Amino acid sequence: MSLVVAVRGWDPAPWLARFRRLAPPGLAVVDGREPFDATAIRWAAVWKPEPGFLAGLPNLRAVFNLGAGVDALLGDPTLPEVPVARIVDPDLTARMTEWVVMHVLMHHRRVATLAEAQARAEWLTLYQPAAGAVRVGIMGLGVLGRDAAAVLRRLGFRVAGWSRTPQEVPGIDSFAGTAGLDAFLGATDILVVLLPATPETRGILRRDLFARLGRGAHMGGPVLINAGRGSLQVEADILAALDDGTLGAASLDVFEHEPLPTASPLWRHPRVFVSPHAAADSDPEALVAQIVDGIAAVERGEPLPHRVDRGRGY
Amino acid sequence: MSLVVAVRGWDPAPWLARFRRLAPPGLAVVDGREPFDATAIRWAAVWKPEPGFLAGLPNLRAVFNLGAGVDALLGDPTLPEVPVARIVDPDLTARMTEWVVMHVLMHHRRVATLAEAQARAEWLTLYQPAAGAVRVGIMGLGVLGRDAAAVLRRLGFRVAGWSRTPQEVPGIDSFAGTAGLDAFLGATDILVVLLPATPETRGILRRDLFARLGRGAHMGGPVLINAGRGSLQVEADILAALDDGTLGAASLDVFEHEPLPTASPLWRHPRVFVSPHAAADSDPEALVAQIVDGIAAVERGEPLPHRVDRGRGY
Repeated sequence: MSLVVAVRGWDPAPWLARFRRLAPPGLAVVDGREPFDATAIRWAAVWKPEPGFLAGLPNLRAVFNLGAGVDALLGDPTLPEVPVARIVDPDLTARMTEWVVMHVLMHHRRVATLAEAQARAEWLTLYQPAAGAVRVGIMGLGVLGRDAAAVLRRLGFRVAGWSRTPQEVPGIDSFAGTAGLDAFLGATDILVVLLPATPETRGILRRDLFARLGRGAHMGGPVLINAGRGSLQVEADILAALDDGTLGAASLDVFEHEPLPTASPLWRHPRVFVSPHAAADSDPEALVAQIVDGIAAVERGEPLPHRVDRGRGY
Repeated sequence: MSLVVAVRGWDPAPWLARFRRLAPPGLAVVDGREPFDATAIRWAAVWKPEPGFLAGLPNLRAVFNLGAGVDALLGDPTLPEVPVARIVDPDLTARMTEWVVMHVLMHHRRVATLAEAQARAEWLTLYQPAAGAVRVGIMGLGVLGRDAAAVLRRLGFRVAGWSRTPQEVPGIDSFAGTAGLDAFLGATDILVVLLPATPETRGILRRDLFARLGRGAHMGGPVLINAGRGSLQVEADILAALDDGTLGAASLDVFEHEPLPTASPLWRHPRVFVSPHAAADSDPEALVAQIVDGIAAVERGEPLPHRVDRGRGY
């Protein structure tokens, strides 16, 4: 009985080493880049595997996706009808909260403006509103959105959330669905996007959405922070909105094409922070133990933890 | 009976307006820049007043300092022997926590390195340790230090604190006095300084202290974040320590001379964030009500809230 590790765009070596260290006796760990007996594979730990790769494994019982986003995996039309688990790891959540909180604060405290003043050796004093005067709106109220919301509330920001279906989150105003979107956007100075990539969310971050945001007055306009997926955003619309003042600034961790092409004007825009899809890296140290535990649970006849609803897409 | 408002380096207009709005009947609010009857003054609300100014008020009952630091006030040898209150305001604490948390995260997540990569249109992937692998040491465990510690702990950092006298703070390792300093520094990757300016703390941030800090490995060396007072730091030592790798980077909100002189190399150092003494501005909206309440308390015969121990210096 074997587990195959198949990752693209990442170095598989630390994943293989950790799986081999933690695998129980009887579970062989196979490197998907090398020849192996496909009929022996029961489990696959993957990140953006080659389309068709999983279809070639006739005895597969479950797939573990090594990052939070399963859109690349579910987009493979040959994906076998086996359960898929996504990562819900406290370490990954903590990393995303670090990144979101840092970027909210950097816009609120105008780090880019102060850096420009520093380059001119200018002692620039700005009127700085309190966090309680600034409204942060979070699109996506899953594990990641809720954790970021809790820390932003602790820092004093006014926090609201929006999700596809109504969610109750203590201390934040929740909006849901198409009916709730206008009210949510109008009450948002800093928009934090943590939505999954689904057919419904594709291209949602476009001009008409930006135009419905709140004022973001002290930041030169409302701010967009996207750490969800690149397919959510229309980059031409982001650039146009920044240039005509519809948006004041943006922090982007994800892009329509990754790595972001050198020619993209986003690299050189003075009001854009480009983050190389690094908001919340998966850490082999923290995740592999969770997957080994998941395999053991299925073998005991329990449900696969953190199973993805393939119809819903996350 | 009158209160005089005397501030230097700040615009007094919003302070005067708010005091006039909130003052109870019978309390006149006087602009210290204009002629007034010195014998009528019972209360003074000040920020760095002209030395000797307060000595000219024979019937003064108390002085309210409009910022957190009282060193400029206590340094006036003519200061009358009346009670002095410092500001302990939740709004000011929240602002300082914003600034400290933001700068800790910016170093931990290497914003300066990523900005340099962005300028080259380079998709730079860095190994990013979790917050739990990074040790933040806070010098000064008053109201400000404790609040920042709580949020940094919530983000997952390992947090220790150092203070002149032993303090118990839940969830953080506390060190105290000269005897505890070495152990504290050796276990610190990011040093956050929130000490008051006193004769004992003058020049404490110097070369031999930096040399005792922990590794700060992923940041190119340990990081100094000073939001206390400029007199704590020896800027020539900071620059030398940055250039020979004893320090990896610094965020400074305070300076030996403010505004920071245009000729200072700190402005142009690629590993220094210069912040124009703006970490935690006093906000008239939040503070004036507190002072009016303090005057009422004294008039009822209660002790002056947040009274400064002039012997200790804070």
